[in-house]
Amino acid sequence: MDHQARLHRLLLEFERRKIDALLVTHLPNVRYLCGFTGGAGILLAGHRSVFFTDGRYSEQARSEVHGARVVIGKGPTLATAARQISRTRIVRLGIEADRLTVAMCSQLATELGKGIKLVPVTGVIETLRMIKQPAEIEAIRDAVNLAARLFRPLLRGIHPGVPETTVAARLEYMARRAGAQAMSFETIVASGPRSALPHGIASTAPIARNGFVVLDYGVILNGYCSDMTRTVYAGKAGEEERALYRAVLEAQLAAITAVTPGSPAGEVDEAARSVLKRARLAKFFTHSTGHGVGLEVHELPRLAARQEQVLQPGMVVTVEPGVYLPGRCGIRIEDMVLVTERGFEVLTPATKDLLEL
Amino acid sequence: MDHQARLHRLLLEFERRKIDALLVTHLPNVRYLCGFTGGAGILLAGHRSVFFTDGRYSEQARSEVHGARVVIGKGPTLATAARQISRTRIVRLGIEADRLTVAMCSQLATELGKGIKLVPVTGVIETLRMIKQPAEIEAIRDAVNLAARLFRPLLRGIHPGVPETTVAARLEYMARRAGAQAMSFETIVASGPRSALPHGIASTAPIARNGFVVLDYGVILNGYCSDMTRTVYAGKAGEEERALYRAVLEAQLAAITAVTPGSPAGEVDEAARSVLKRARLAKFFTHSTGHGVGLEVHELPRLAARQEQVLQPGMVVTVEPGVYLPGRCGIRIEDMVLVTERGFEVLTPATKDLLEL
Repeated sequence: MDHQARLHRLLLEFERRKIDALLVTHLPNVRYLCGFTGGAGILLAGHRSVFFTDGRYSEQARSEVHGARVVIGKGPTLATAARQISRTRIVRLGIEADRLTVAMCSQLATELGKGIKLVPVTGVIETLRMIKQPAEIEAIRDAVNLAARLFRPLLRGIHPGVPETTVAARLEYMARRAGAQAMSFETIVASGPRSALPHGIASTAPIARNGFVVLDYGVILNGYCSDMTRTVYAGKAGEEERALYRAVLEAQLAAITAVTPGSPAGEVDEAARSVLKRARLAKFFTHSTGHGVGLEVHELPRLAARQEQVLQPGMVVTVEPGVYLPGRCGIRIEDMVLVTERGFEVLTPATKDLLEL
Repeated sequence: MDHQARLHRLLLEFERRKIDALLVTHLPNVRYLCGFTGGAGILLAGHRSVFFTDGRYSEQARSEVHGARVVIGKGPTLATAARQISRTRIVRLGIEADRLTVAMCSQLATELGKGIKLVPVTGVIETLRMIKQPAEIEAIRDAVNLAARLFRPLLRGIHPGVPETTVAARLEYMARRAGAQAMSFETIVASGPRSALPHGIASTAPIARNGFVVLDYGVILNGYCSDMTRTVYAGKAGEEERALYRAVLEAQLAAITAVTPGSPAGEVDEAARSVLKRARLAKFFTHSTGHGVGLEVHELPRLAARQEQVLQPGMVVTVEPGVYLPGRCGIRIEDMVLVTERGFEVLTPATKDLLEL
């Protein structure tokens, strides 16, 4: 990964934001800028970047961190960073206002004293992260492909009576064996009436006979996340259920087609919603259409109503409309999609036909 | 779980903190006070508590939330909460300063207007959570026992050449099959020289022949976490390695014995450290001795140098000294320990003899 180019692009933002340096405390942002993958560390990003961590991570920091001097502190890392900053000529220090807590901010202000002004900054690194570099797109492809390869083997373990957690456990075992570092979020296996819960994390409930099963999962591979959803049917679906499934699939395809560089993100959401409106299902589509994916499973841009963020080549987003009839059933279909120069590329290589198990 | 008693104890703190209500945004704290287990929600804790969430969680909130009225909002939940608060007589609103971000705090201040003062509060719910209720201790016991039962089967999969991730994958599969919701943190399997990394998350490196393997893992069961570490030897340990192991075990036993109601937490840390000092290993013990465990895997109290928090019956802590010789090897031994009326009870039922595989 080209950490230097990223840091360089960040520095270009400093003038407009009127800051001399940015204190990066959100770990995925730290990783993005300097490569550190550990669990605790702070990056002072500037013309002379410094990375701070504690003794647990000294070996790891020295081998991983690019483009920044490494300082191993004793005691709280924020205090270590503050001491260092006090010795520089920094006057206006940016802080990640949407990441730093009120308590940490006031502690930092106290330790820095009055000579240094803290400037709240939001979304600056997250905005850079929206546009993926080629190496990142490859890493995401690998994570998407790994997850998609597990879909067929996953289905073989789904039978009426098997607990949802067992289905999830098998999936996660296969993912780990295939090299995944971890799942990118808690696996959703929601069967029968539980499929109507948009966030139906696998429960001890058994797979219901004659009902939809929503399978929503992703893996982390080399730090990059994937996210996919398929809804299958345990048994033989009735005509009404097929019609519901077709409506969601049609909405999903319409939304994918709306993924175009230059379009506002809200149009992708609108494309899905208008298909469901025609099918009189819009009120059962209770969440937004998608989100960016990268080092985190939920990133910018948001594909939601009225989002004006313009889609650009290199963005990777999910497209995942769903309908949820409370107490009855739910269906969601989700792919990851790359915004290309000319339109879109669906990254997720798994069938969207309604599979009956 | 007795949510009403918890909320009541929280209200007793309001006078001293000079607040009329507390806006609880940290999800484990929300769960602790009202029972909601979902992924997004805010509790306005006060004499008339209100729980706010969005459409995704409406069914779940209605079935889970105790002691608070449920409001399902459209749009961002913080804005929903702010609108509601504006309509009350609240003048001084506590915020969780160590959880709320600077950006959320300033957004909240804007939406509430000048009539309502935001009062930063830290650790008030976390302090209540330190002392576990009997039902919580039982839930923790269940999580500890589940994890400990997996220790012997886990060992059967450890052989030189097997990737650390495969060892972790088998463990996590067994945990899920046994009913765990999730692991309580990323499983550590650190073998050979990697055992010298205190946070050696399972890598693709193979288990080394003739070396220590640090196994640090835990499960979440019914929302409560467990955390245990054992260090085994792949092969036949030499005399020097046995001596190292004995030193760490002696330090751990000394620290456990120091767990007494009425003692400051720092004394437990000191007990471990002084044993290692005598063995000239103190400088290789680079982290603190332990931490509380409950709804989160890292809670109060901290068992670290100079911590003055007094141990009290009902606290559940880890005791986990370790030594790490960079580039060579590391050893850590960790149990969960309950502070009782008369002393301590070790919760983790797994042998601490040096096992050679």
